[in-house]
Amino acid sequence: MNTMNNQEDIVIVGGGPAGLSAAINGIIRGYRVSVLDGGATKLSRAERIDNYLGLPGVTGMEIMKAFEDHALSLGVTIIRGKATNVFSMGQQYMVGYGSEVLTARAVILATGALRSKAVEGEEEFLGKGVSYCATCDGMLYRGKKAVVYGLAADAAEEANYLAGIGVQIVYVNPGPRPKELREDVEWQQGTLQSIQGDSAVKAVEIKGENDVKIEAQGVFLLRDAVAPQAMVSGLEIDKGFIMVNKEMKTNLPGLFACGDCTGQPLQISKAAGEGLIAGQEAAKYLDSLS
Amino acid sequence: MNTMNNQEDIVIVGGGPAGLSAAINGIIRGYRVSVLDGGATKLSRAERIDNYLGLPGVTGMEIMKAFEDHALSLGVTIIRGKATNVFSMGQQYMVGYGSEVLTARAVILATGALRSKAVEGEEEFLGKGVSYCATCDGMLYRGKKAVVYGLAADAAEEANYLAGIGVQIVYVNPGPRPKELREDVEWQQGTLQSIQGDSAVKAVEIKGENDVKIEAQGVFLLRDAVAPQAMVSGLEIDKGFIMVNKEMKTNLPGLFACGDCTGQPLQISKAAGEGLIAGQEAAKYLDSLS
Repeated sequence: MNTMNNQEDIVIVGGGPAGLSAAINGIIRGYRVSVLDGGATKLSRAERIDNYLGLPGVTGMEIMKAFEDHALSLGVTIIRGKATNVFSMGQQYMVGYGSEVLTARAVILATGALRSKAVEGEEEFLGKGVSYCATCDGMLYRGKKAVVYGLAADAAEEANYLAGIGVQIVYVNPGPRPKELREDVEWQQGTLQSIQGDSAVKAVEIKGENDVKIEAQGVFLLRDAVAPQAMVSGLEIDKGFIMVNKEMKTNLPGLFACGDCTGQPLQISKAAGEGLIAGQEAAKYLDSLS
Repeated sequence: MNTMNNQEDIVIVGGGPAGLSAAINGIIRGYRVSVLDGGATKLSRAERIDNYLGLPGVTGMEIMKAFEDHALSLGVTIIRGKATNVFSMGQQYMVGYGSEVLTARAVILATGALRSKAVEGEEEFLGKGVSYCATCDGMLYRGKKAVVYGLAADAAEEANYLAGIGVQIVYVNPGPRPKELREDVEWQQGTLQSIQGDSAVKAVEIKGENDVKIEAQGVFLLRDAVAPQAMVSGLEIDKGFIMVNKEMKTNLPGLFACGDCTGQPLQISKAAGEGLIAGQEAAKYLDSLS
């Protein structure tokens, strides 16, 4: 992990319309910009989009390609990786994804709308047994027992990784057993109801065809997106959305947010417009530091 | 004057990006929409636009054509006419333009940032050295000399941006030297009297404590909005911009506003995003009446 090689002016968490609009506006103002794209956007599966002005009657795939090509043509770096945490180090933010870290003086959250609500106990045991990233935290549970709650597309692969390094896994998901899951990994159908413990996680409750309680030292919650308040400590949230002012500033200095993660309407044009503001305001913020 | 023939569900005042984005979103929701286009948009003369996501490296003319074609393809009516007043008749608004009137139950103001009176030579050299947007056109003047006529609140910041990308700036404004202006930027007190040249800008005349003529290849005219309350009686205005909430509602029922007329940043993507919200909210408002 060499953070010196990963120094950016602006890191943008999310590669949908809001994130890419922020990116082009940051780079036009003369700053180095990287976009971390977790690949979770549902937009690329939309069959037909008619209300993004100037690009009528396009598929989600077509519009996302136009957006990415635009950003790449201006020199934006797009990194395929799912950000798991953003933390302030005084003058810098560090953005962790997998086992890598990017550093930047300004960060823009464009994480999209969460499609799953928090589990009871999730916030309480964050960092005390609850993790969002197998690669980051897996080694902590070597030789121990952990539940993987698999809601993301790549969750079974993550579970296989954990099993491979010697974590004793029970894989839980609402649907059928994933084909990708290693045969020697224990599987349980159901939804995660609560996480229990005292100073650290001790057990989880699963509701499904059979309700069960599983004793475990760790819980990996693998969703398509990480809840913003779990990603950034101290971030102000209102009804599940990141609180921003008209300049797309959050309550934390140098941290901006735009797009679906700030609230309704969940629409491309609103996201791109907010992305523009966030990108320009992040650039102004960096101007003010120099 | 036959208002019965001019009955619409939604009338939109202004045919720029905000107005057209509002229009497509209104019509997609099933309402009859007319756009009154006063032809005042300066956007169509922009030399190059790089920061509207999905349409990179386009001229103002090209992007406006894409926007209008999109709206027309969905059935929006575009009327060439300059609205002069909007007044409430109980359940209806009447929108006057020339000697004609349109009526509608919802009106969306997308009037742009109205500019104060033109400088001699301004229209003649628009797109030939005269620009309204440092971010849009700045790169064209890299290594060249340009005058920034700073009447807007953020004009000094824009001038600093231009200086930062290598434009040789003379900053002109009627008042004292702005504190925000970079120390290495040349400054001249005065008002801009005329813009001169042949096929392109060559010089500007300044009247002030000392009358001077400055040779330059570019002139950035950075003005604030002019108050739009002249058009709508009782409309709440703040610092020259129409006051709106997050749903783009003004203080008057059934009257919405979006785009440059609601405030900074004066950018296409912000305007289109607000237009989307205004169009959808106007449709919701009409839903609630029926």
